[in-house]
Amino acid sequence: MNLDTLYSELTLKTSAKIALVVLDGVGDIATKENGEMTPLEAARTPNLDALVGQGVAQGRMIPVAPGITPGSGPGHLALFGYDPIEFQVGRGVIEALGLGLELKPGDVAARANFCTLDKNGVVTDRRAGRIPTEVCQELCDKLAKKIKKVGDVEVIIKAGKEHRFVVIFRGKGLEGPLTATDPNREGLKLLEARPENAKSLAQKKAAKAVAEFVKAALPVIASHPKANGFLMRGIAHQPHIPLFQDRYLLKPACLAVYPMYKGLAQLVGMTKIEGPQTIAQQFERYLAEYANYDFFFIHFKYTDKYGEDGNFEAKKKAVEEFDAALPILLKKKPDVLAITGDHSTPCPMKGHSWHPQPVLIHSACSGSDKLDRFTETGANLGSLGVFEAKYLIRYLQAHARMFDKFGA
Amino acid sequence: MNLDTLYSELTLKTSAKIALVVLDGVGDIATKENGEMTPLEAARTPNLDALVGQGVAQGRMIPVAPGITPGSGPGHLALFGYDPIEFQVGRGVIEALGLGLELKPGDVAARANFCTLDKNGVVTDRRAGRIPTEVCQELCDKLAKKIKKVGDVEVIIKAGKEHRFVVIFRGKGLEGPLTATDPNREGLKLLEARPENAKSLAQKKAAKAVAEFVKAALPVIASHPKANGFLMRGIAHQPHIPLFQDRYLLKPACLAVYPMYKGLAQLVGMTKIEGPQTIAQQFERYLAEYANYDFFFIHFKYTDKYGEDGNFEAKKKAVEEFDAALPILLKKKPDVLAITGDHSTPCPMKGHSWHPQPVLIHSACSGSDKLDRFTETGANLGSLGVFEAKYLIRYLQAHARMFDKFGA
Repeated sequence: MNLDTLYSELTLKTSAKIALVVLDGVGDIATKENGEMTPLEAARTPNLDALVGQGVAQGRMIPVAPGITPGSGPGHLALFGYDPIEFQVGRGVIEALGLGLELKPGDVAARANFCTLDKNGVVTDRRAGRIPTEVCQELCDKLAKKIKKVGDVEVIIKAGKEHRFVVIFRGKGLEGPLTATDPNREGLKLLEARPENAKSLAQKKAAKAVAEFVKAALPVIASHPKANGFLMRGIAHQPHIPLFQDRYLLKPACLAVYPMYKGLAQLVGMTKIEGPQTIAQQFERYLAEYANYDFFFIHFKYTDKYGEDGNFEAKKKAVEEFDAALPILLKKKPDVLAITGDHSTPCPMKGHSWHPQPVLIHSACSGSDKLDRFTETGANLGSLGVFEAKYLIRYLQAHARMFDKFGA
Repeated sequence: MNLDTLYSELTLKTSAKIALVVLDGVGDIATKENGEMTPLEAARTPNLDALVGQGVAQGRMIPVAPGITPGSGPGHLALFGYDPIEFQVGRGVIEALGLGLELKPGDVAARANFCTLDKNGVVTDRRAGRIPTEVCQELCDKLAKKIKKVGDVEVIIKAGKEHRFVVIFRGKGLEGPLTATDPNREGLKLLEARPENAKSLAQKKAAKAVAEFVKAALPVIASHPKANGFLMRGIAHQPHIPLFQDRYLLKPACLAVYPMYKGLAQLVGMTKIEGPQTIAQQFERYLAEYANYDFFFIHFKYTDKYGEDGNFEAKKKAVEEFDAALPILLKKKPDVLAITGDHSTPCPMKGHSWHPQPVLIHSACSGSDKLDRFTETGANLGSLGVFEAKYLIRYLQAHARMFDKFGA
């Protein structure tokens, strides 16, 4: 029997409220340069410390598999309880969601970027000298104005940062994934996007739409001095993902500021709550919406952002900003509260990493691990041990008393 | 290659003696109300402490999977090294074993309980007002006297506690599982037990036997004022489980007091040693039987019992009772000794839970984790980490030097 099936069979509906607070990329590593401290260790966190004092279970989570550094997509899918290896989301879909585009079932999305072609159509610069975002916007506007459809397929174009943009193909009977038009290095011509499964009629139809789009689009920008071509990659449809609410019997809401995380929440069927811009506002809104949902995904971006910058002080301050706001959330303490990251973003590495992120769970039955604070080193000593992030939701359900006993 | 196959291929026969002491439900959580202590932490355990001082490896075990609370069946099957999700045992079988009935291969067992029906056959009380055990016994005697067979299928009836009883169908070519006759709520009529697999002839035959039994049995009790009907659930045959002795090359004995645990041991082919009633007597008997077996499963019930009652003091005292008896076992120290639970039964929860139970292993090669005591918080820091309970037996075999090296 499949483990997910067993969980489903044991799941009971309760009235418990669960809050999952994601401090994006919060995990870090202690180095000599940083005084053998992580930002979480260096930060002043009186409110978090008080919560730990009330009794929490701690541990560390492997985001995907040992040594694998996740992007935001797999990182969050795991937190939402979906095996990130089984449920892979095409890069085009993630980019589209990240740009705040609404995807409909059957949409095929491609990640694209402007490039430079020579007179023979050979790629000479895959990123067109990283043209400024405004130039990208201008080129996209031009394309969008000229090309609204190819055949019976609607085309939606949206500019991203610098040379990046997204193209969505919306029509009946389309499906990905397709191979890239990107030859992956300079000195080669553009490729044709081909069905990954040669027998799929829907992939063939999508490939035809892409080919027609490329044929129609290239002349529109042909005279541009720097960006006279474009490459397409990660051409795929939105995967079928079982709805969060059906899977866990929890009505979920997303309180995120950045489009990418709203997009990922939307992918599993969470309701996006719009408006709040700061973590304090997000917590205030949680209070206001308390009665309306069972599960709150609350996303805080800045720990990751400053980790990416390698800015230890700013990451530490981001933790302190979260800590200062925490009492708002605790005004209506959820029955089960988890605080964690979607992965680590160690300042010394200036990027995401595979280091297991610390996690805490607080509930009436979390007991106490008798640790003073919530930190990486502390979490190493906790009762949850090191486990795969995809199981976190199952612990949260257990703490919410949502599982019937298995067997007599 | 299947992991069990690999273990089998590497297994060597040795003369080592292994003892697995199960303090049922010993794991607990530290809460403010209990002075941030668990019963294991609060108990005076000089003998256990001395054993830890001699060098033990500690860790915590996930009974089934993250967040899943096991019944005694899955909890013990995991301790015996059988994946509790792969080897599921029907409730009827467990109840039958729990009542001390011997099941033969091919027997189909049903968990039943007396209920009250109105004149139209509608269930008005699913538990017949929880009739006293003596009334249940009287009704079962009446049924057993009237109905010894249905067709060529022998029927065995045994009373349990209050409204509960067990019916065994013994004959050729029978198989479960069947759906329940229990409509699961009041206001509905009894259902027919149907094959879960409509194509199985053996399930069809079992369903026919159940139908004939119900038809014959209802008139026998029809005039009873409170319990004039009965419901059947968990109708299944004893699953095929590879014998413990074949799987591990260990000749196993069970020293348990309660029928349920004897039954579970019997399911995997352990020899039941009858007689001892206290943990001291169980350990004495272990000494007497030392030469006759390689593996001793010694079960102590009271940690679970008092956990279920939420009685912290009594659970603590149960641990102390075990500790006081421990020197008897250590008179002939087994080559490998494990002390653990089949799951946690936290006093604050008054029931089984998913919290990983602490485990210790003592052997000539256990080394020392340099911890002072055997407790939940200590076990968090141990060399075994957090692992699935089904692997414990493999560690015990390893400590008994029963595995050849894998690969060159």
